[in-house]
Amino acid sequence: MSMIVNRRDIDFYLYEMLDLEGLLKNDRYQEHDRDTVTAILDLAQQIAEEAFLPCAAELDEHEPVFESGRAVTPDSLKACLKTFVEAGLPAATFDAALGGMQLPMLVANFMQGIFQAANGSAVGYIFLTTSNAHMLEACGSDALRARYLPPLVEGRWFGTMCLSEPHAGSSLSDIRCMAEPLGDGSFKLTGTKMWISGGDQDVSENIVHMVLARTPGAPAGVKGISLFLVPKYRVTETGEIGDFNHVALAGLNHKMGQRGITNTLLNFGEGGECLGYLVGAEHEGLKNMFHMMNEARIGVGMGAAMSGLAGYLYSLDYARNRPQGRHPGIKDPNSPMLPIIEHADIRRLLMEQKVTVEGSIALLSYCTQLVDQQVMAEDAAEKERLTLLLELLTPVAKSWPSEYTLEANKHAIQILGGYGYTREYPVERHYRDNRLNPIHEGTHGIQGMDLLGRKVNLAGGKALDLLGQEIQSLLDEASGIPQLEPLAASLKEAWQDVTTTVSAVNDHADVLARLANATPFLDAFGHVVIAWLWLWQAVIAQRAIEKEPSVDADFYQGKLAACTFFYRYHLPQAREKLSYVGSMDRTALDAKATWFTGG
Amino acid sequence: MSMIVNRRDIDFYLYEMLDLEGLLKNDRYQEHDRDTVTAILDLAQQIAEEAFLPCAAELDEHEPVFESGRAVTPDSLKACLKTFVEAGLPAATFDAALGGMQLPMLVANFMQGIFQAANGSAVGYIFLTTSNAHMLEACGSDALRARYLPPLVEGRWFGTMCLSEPHAGSSLSDIRCMAEPLGDGSFKLTGTKMWISGGDQDVSENIVHMVLARTPGAPAGVKGISLFLVPKYRVTETGEIGDFNHVALAGLNHKMGQRGITNTLLNFGEGGECLGYLVGAEHEGLKNMFHMMNEARIGVGMGAAMSGLAGYLYSLDYARNRPQGRHPGIKDPNSPMLPIIEHADIRRLLMEQKVTVEGSIALLSYCTQLVDQQVMAEDAAEKERLTLLLELLTPVAKSWPSEYTLEANKHAIQILGGYGYTREYPVERHYRDNRLNPIHEGTHGIQGMDLLGRKVNLAGGKALDLLGQEIQSLLDEASGIPQLEPLAASLKEAWQDVTTTVSAVNDHADVLARLANATPFLDAFGHVVIAWLWLWQAVIAQRAIEKEPSVDADFYQGKLAACTFFYRYHLPQAREKLSYVGSMDRTALDAKATWFTGG
Repeated sequence: MSMIVNRRDIDFYLYEMLDLEGLLKNDRYQEHDRDTVTAILDLAQQIAEEAFLPCAAELDEHEPVFESGRAVTPDSLKACLKTFVEAGLPAATFDAALGGMQLPMLVANFMQGIFQAANGSAVGYIFLTTSNAHMLEACGSDALRARYLPPLVEGRWFGTMCLSEPHAGSSLSDIRCMAEPLGDGSFKLTGTKMWISGGDQDVSENIVHMVLARTPGAPAGVKGISLFLVPKYRVTETGEIGDFNHVALAGLNHKMGQRGITNTLLNFGEGGECLGYLVGAEHEGLKNMFHMMNEARIGVGMGAAMSGLAGYLYSLDYARNRPQGRHPGIKDPNSPMLPIIEHADIRRLLMEQKVTVEGSIALLSYCTQLVDQQVMAEDAAEKERLTLLLELLTPVAKSWPSEYTLEANKHAIQILGGYGYTREYPVERHYRDNRLNPIHEGTHGIQGMDLLGRKVNLAGGKALDLLGQEIQSLLDEASGIPQLEPLAASLKEAWQDVTTTVSAVNDHADVLARLANATPFLDAFGHVVIAWLWLWQAVIAQRAIEKEPSVDADFYQGKLAACTFFYRYHLPQAREKLSYVGSMDRTALDAKATWFTGG
Repeated sequence: MSMIVNRRDIDFYLYEMLDLEGLLKNDRYQEHDRDTVTAILDLAQQIAEEAFLPCAAELDEHEPVFESGRAVTPDSLKACLKTFVEAGLPAATFDAALGGMQLPMLVANFMQGIFQAANGSAVGYIFLTTSNAHMLEACGSDALRARYLPPLVEGRWFGTMCLSEPHAGSSLSDIRCMAEPLGDGSFKLTGTKMWISGGDQDVSENIVHMVLARTPGAPAGVKGISLFLVPKYRVTETGEIGDFNHVALAGLNHKMGQRGITNTLLNFGEGGECLGYLVGAEHEGLKNMFHMMNEARIGVGMGAAMSGLAGYLYSLDYARNRPQGRHPGIKDPNSPMLPIIEHADIRRLLMEQKVTVEGSIALLSYCTQLVDQQVMAEDAAEKERLTLLLELLTPVAKSWPSEYTLEANKHAIQILGGYGYTREYPVERHYRDNRLNPIHEGTHGIQGMDLLGRKVNLAGGKALDLLGQEIQSLLDEASGIPQLEPLAASLKEAWQDVTTTVSAVNDHADVLARLANATPFLDAFGHVVIAWLWLWQAVIAQRAIEKEPSVDADFYQGKLAACTFFYRYHLPQAREKLSYVGSMDRTALDAKATWFTGG
């Protein structure tokens, strides 16, 4: 049993729940079929298990250090990233014209996920690079693309995203970094960026920073933000690496987890001129940056889900092999101890992990398929439908896995007991790594505001209607399956709760009260979405069992049990949350700052 | 504002909610009054803030190391413990005849709590010593007490508890450590103990281990376990430290948090004879060890609550001072940024922490007062009442704070955002420290089994009835206060849910199904208990406001808001949990080991 991936489960999402084979029929993917996809995932799993997994604990214990103004990383990091690059994997999603493998995102997402489960912080350098390059591909000029894309796609250079500043984390409207035009098409960058993952390292030959900054005279707020490509080392016209571009490393942040990837404070233009190049139009920086941010949000959700999966698989293996205690009621102390998976509470902790982790992976898979379908869609209405669904679900795909697979990691530790609390076992590391995910790429609270303040009303509520139609389609399918009818009825009611809540919120005059429970709404809405995805899985499982009872029966029974568990143990709590969101509860909102401690 | 304690709130528990002044009227406490209690807490706060808090981050970053078979601790640990010992604080709870301060546990608990908030792992050495000495005082022979108690009370020697072994963590029935009588009243100890906090260190002159072991021919299981005092260095008849007693340090465990206190693997009798001395009667070791375990369980709950408090106070201070963003609907990007406490979601995260932390402290205070009242009770029926209440509430007092203040620490990190995820700020350390608490001193699952499998039926259900009477008394008090009537009605219904659930469980034939949801029952039962304690606080607050509206109005309004919040946001979820406990839901129980991954 692999400690980082359940390939049978991946095949379930790719071929039974979603339609990868249909997608692969498109001309764009003519180089690929089920066999090549399997071969690529085999390769990913092999490299992840042989090169990335073995050094994860070491990278955690020996994080990169700041020496003489630069970040020095451990050799084991360089070695595993070299293996990844030499296998050509950085090019997975890029067009063949760029030397890429031209894989669907749905496949690339699992390829990435396998590495995230093995060693999330090490592979973070690569996935930032990938989304950085995707943004450059989408928004950059031909000249910039020609000069910078190839080394990024090849993985020779790495990329970053530079948004936050020390005084402006979530509040991008307040950034101060400046970019002054030099008259030759280039800009002179000055200012400080904070929390920049991979902002310095000694692994890649160069670093391509994507930086939000203001131009002179730009309007205040987000409308005055532009996007700049700023290399660590300047690049000659022929693509050679030139002089240092004065992106000075001011310091490293020392994190609770995710220690393999540097997190930096960067001073642009300290000690010399720092040159940058406009990406996309002036003042449209934030809009363009969302190309990278939306991809990164899905990536964060997937990273969380895979941290959850790694903890789940490890604790499952432990539970199957660790003997301890006996059933309640067994009085003979000489009777053999049971593997702890035989204890009801351990099974409950495993089931909690299963519903959360596999629910999250189903959500990320669905969203990634939407991305692929967008690329393929030729009909404008269909493209809009896919875009609206993806926009609506992105805050959920980022947040729900981040919040709830952290809880799953907590359960994995609990199953290992004292062992789980030590750094000799990986489960506590996954817990620490995962704690970042509700913070970066838009905090949990920001995602809640995005969902309840904006996304549920996108296109006049059309996005929400479209999701309702998806859910209704599933309810129609489930209606013929007697075992699942009670669950379908619960889902139907829960979705009604969602739409009723959204209406109540929209009808309320006070914007503060409307959004005071945006985070609980995000959590509850996420539960309803996950409930939908679980019922979907249960429908497939039930049909498979009826069709061929002897094939993969354990796998499908597990899906059915997990679905039942989620509906019994989680969905009711979500509906209860919706009731106080809908009542615009203001208990916390109305609490004065002085009330918390009485002075 | 202190970062580790809210003294106004402590006074609330001691003098408004509970009756410390009444307790102090007993002859036993004639040396103490409100002024001396304040002076002791002042002293504790001063030492905690000046000696313990400043080195907490350093101890976390530089944990004790294993060198040539011994544990070497940082100098800063030795220095802060020296300050504690020299102030005479280890003697807080002991009788004056032993040189102690003879303080009520209710006061000592807060004194300890202040140190737990400042630097929980450092002070852990002392509190293990205190409960070790309490057990020796209660169960040891005169000779053992005379030789070992004074240096423990003075804090010159430290104590441990040695229960688990590598193959037997929760399953004490299976321990293998042996103690063979040598004929002179001493025993020869052999075997290995795991997870021993403070099992070796270079701070105290000697270490007094309390060890569970079997004597030759002892019955299998817990009925054959005896308790032994085993010193690190042998002690002469005159109390001088003699030869090494061959308690060999085999290794240190490297923990996620709580890094200041060593956690050890000990080999008794490796390399030479290891002598031990029977404490209490043979084969009654586990019963005697419960003297220490019950005290330690309350101590774990208090440590968790104080980790929660430290995170709460730090994040509250940060929220009051960190400017970021503007209210939704404010379009002018040039308007000043708000302190983040003005944002609704930050207030919600603070309120979540307040209800959990102060609810936990109220619970621990109530339980500690029960301990004090037990000491004072002269009437047998009253003593039994207090004992039953304490027995019933101990698993809750250990578990609820451990589980839910961990969640509070998670929220503290979230308020600080990226900063909260770095080791430059203390909130992530509290989160890591606190993660141990649901594991040690009986896991969360074990506590659930203890509560639902044993404690709710203690003395034929009398313990549960007694708690019901306490709740009814409060409901009677609240019935005259119109603002609180809806909350009182909810509490009444929730308590009915509890008793209905217990009856349903008791009526069910299958013991596995009965206990399959013991942990959710523990959580839900804990919520109902905390709801009772919040309503109690609200009654006091409402009366205080009505009596003198101008005195401490913010403090009391905060209590009222927190109570309302807990009833709106948490109590309904607990009642929903009780419904599946009562239905003996077996979804997880019936899941086969092969279902989780399908093979």
